[in-house]
Amino acid sequence: MPQTADSIVVNDRAYRLPTEPAVVLCIDGCEPDYITQALQAGLMPSLQRMFQRGGTSLVAEAVMPTFTNPNNLSIVTGAPPAVHGIAGNYFLDRSTGAEVMMNEPELLRAPSLLAGISEAGVAVAVVTAKDKLRRLLGHGLAAGSICFSAEKADAATLDFVGLPLPDVYSAALSEFVFAAGVALLRAGRAKLLYLSTTDYIQHKCAPGTPGANAFYAMLDRYLGQLDELGARIALTADHGMNAKTDAAGQPRIVYLQPVLDAALGAGAARVILPITDPYVVHHGALGSFATVYLDDPARAIDALRALPGVELVLTQQQAAERFELPPDRIGDLVVVAERLVVLGTSPERHDLSALQDLPLRSHGGLSEQQVPLLFNRRLAQVPARPRNFDAFELLLNHVAA
Amino acid sequence: MPQTADSIVVNDRAYRLPTEPAVVLCIDGCEPDYITQALQAGLMPSLQRMFQRGGTSLVAEAVMPTFTNPNNLSIVTGAPPAVHGIAGNYFLDRSTGAEVMMNEPELLRAPSLLAGISEAGVAVAVVTAKDKLRRLLGHGLAAGSICFSAEKADAATLDFVGLPLPDVYSAALSEFVFAAGVALLRAGRAKLLYLSTTDYIQHKCAPGTPGANAFYAMLDRYLGQLDELGARIALTADHGMNAKTDAAGQPRIVYLQPVLDAALGAGAARVILPITDPYVVHHGALGSFATVYLDDPARAIDALRALPGVELVLTQQQAAERFELPPDRIGDLVVVAERLVVLGTSPERHDLSALQDLPLRSHGGLSEQQVPLLFNRRLAQVPARPRNFDAFELLLNHVAA
Repeated sequence: MPQTADSIVVNDRAYRLPTEPAVVLCIDGCEPDYITQALQAGLMPSLQRMFQRGGTSLVAEAVMPTFTNPNNLSIVTGAPPAVHGIAGNYFLDRSTGAEVMMNEPELLRAPSLLAGISEAGVAVAVVTAKDKLRRLLGHGLAAGSICFSAEKADAATLDFVGLPLPDVYSAALSEFVFAAGVALLRAGRAKLLYLSTTDYIQHKCAPGTPGANAFYAMLDRYLGQLDELGARIALTADHGMNAKTDAAGQPRIVYLQPVLDAALGAGAARVILPITDPYVVHHGALGSFATVYLDDPARAIDALRALPGVELVLTQQQAAERFELPPDRIGDLVVVAERLVVLGTSPERHDLSALQDLPLRSHGGLSEQQVPLLFNRRLAQVPARPRNFDAFELLLNHVAA
Repeated sequence: MPQTADSIVVNDRAYRLPTEPAVVLCIDGCEPDYITQALQAGLMPSLQRMFQRGGTSLVAEAVMPTFTNPNNLSIVTGAPPAVHGIAGNYFLDRSTGAEVMMNEPELLRAPSLLAGISEAGVAVAVVTAKDKLRRLLGHGLAAGSICFSAEKADAATLDFVGLPLPDVYSAALSEFVFAAGVALLRAGRAKLLYLSTTDYIQHKCAPGTPGANAFYAMLDRYLGQLDELGARIALTADHGMNAKTDAAGQPRIVYLQPVLDAALGAGAARVILPITDPYVVHHGALGSFATVYLDDPARAIDALRALPGVELVLTQQQAAERFELPPDRIGDLVVVAERLVVLGTSPERHDLSALQDLPLRSHGGLSEQQVPLLFNRRLAQVPARPRNFDAFELLLNHVAA
């Protein structure tokens, strides 16, 4: 589709400009079974109606690492991290030895389709749960576009949405995002919306359990409202979520730094856990993906591969190719843990006290790549291997007439 | 440990004869999170007490394919399927073209440790949920040993256990197994018990949901009784369990026969789904593992590997090596599906009507290999990579004094 008056091209993909309101929701940590179980419990009647009316349900692949930042950026750029540059929540700047948060727009290597569509004159709104994503997702939006976070909503926004400022660790933070989306649509303030939540609940509650079901019942009420307002809707996720414990609920952690210190000498390798961010209270900075910076990767590979619980060890080049990652932001080795296992640096660097009450659930690995990709309309065309970052293209270009 | 008056050797592993009652429970389809969630909900107080008292919780690897027969036989032989010969629920006899159920003791290639220990004079009892496993598990038991199924319990057994004959599709079938174990122990009728349940509930209910929690609360009551009777207890599973649907609850099925017919010509390949058995109502004969019998495997491999949802395609030799399987009972190719996907033959050969009410949950793949391996005692020694078929050795040889 060449660029025309009613379409634009961003990162080599064409997008039709919306002629009716279009909403993409990224439900953080939405393992497909969360929705399956809530539907099964009768708690998502609006979604059920959308499916009965011809809506589409796909399972799509998220990008690796299955973390929030890389996947949100992939969804809004329509491209893998190799293109947009955000390969995790932070990386190591080799020149300074500093750990650099990947929250800064200057680290972005590609424009977002949201920016492109807003530049084409469409009213675009982005609402995120946490503020850390806001600047990345809102980068390049045309003047007059809307972009705010629930976490840092100002007084006027609170008034507009009609909810109090939510706690950053709460289901209410995500509810605020949905409520804001409905309010924006109802007020005619936006034609294209991107709503991105937080996985506070998903880190705590397994699919089908009361806390999870309450979250998805809440989501369903807002889905129903968005649908009634005439929007075409796509729902996807940045990653899935799995238990990372034994049956007794104890976290299963493979600590990498001691192994590397033993193999290469103390401090010769530096382990980076790109799940780490300023908001790690709910998962102790433990995910199923790690990168390692070191001089002699070949010497460490065998020691890492021999570790029980390690699923995959790739060199920088292998990981960049297989996972479409920017090589300069992933270290020299990439380590992926098995489904029920997470990777840590050293025991003393992780605070596990928050895991005393609730068994660890987390993400980051291959086992969290399968996510829902749902539409409230029928698609005329469905890709054989959908990816979560196809959401905007499918919603804008391929909804059946 | 050489064979002595107080130990025996079976399949190259030594087992101390029990000096106190010892019970191994194989909880069919027990994904670790079933227990985690039930503990979290406060529904397994007996197990909680066992852990607090120094019990041991490991995650062990089940054998591939992650089906009932291969794993039960591995647990009672202490050996992988390459040794005991039971590689699934059935296989194709190439000489006759017949599909042969692997329920017959003559197909066994190794003795069970239960048989060996009973021959050494220890009172052994085996109780299974379904009758199909009874003959395999009971094979070679010394005269006077006890071996029966809940499904076909006779009048005297019903009277002894004190429960009515359970329906074969019910949680009660497994409860009968537990109750029988407690009754046998209480009556002093057995010193070594193997109790093996059915995954009727696990195929239907996700971890932490009401149906699952009720099952594990029931299990916990019997665990408490076994523990109070002074038994040392090991609990493991034949395989885990995962959702095999999209978020809408529709099964995700990759049908192999049409692909093979297109690649090789109609009927040139024959797909065998070794999950199939006389009891397939609850999962439509759909699991994540298939074997293919054909003349020219090389021609089919690429077509199978290209299928979305297929995780792994191995030749007979590769599969036999990697999964320790008997090559003559696994076909020419082995196909493994991704975590949320199952493999079918052709659409017309599967009855999906039973999946209308409840979303498909199943097993068979790599994603169901991680299972609990729990003990009500402290172990003096823990293997780095425990397997479910280490259960008897750990329980009999390595419980701390």
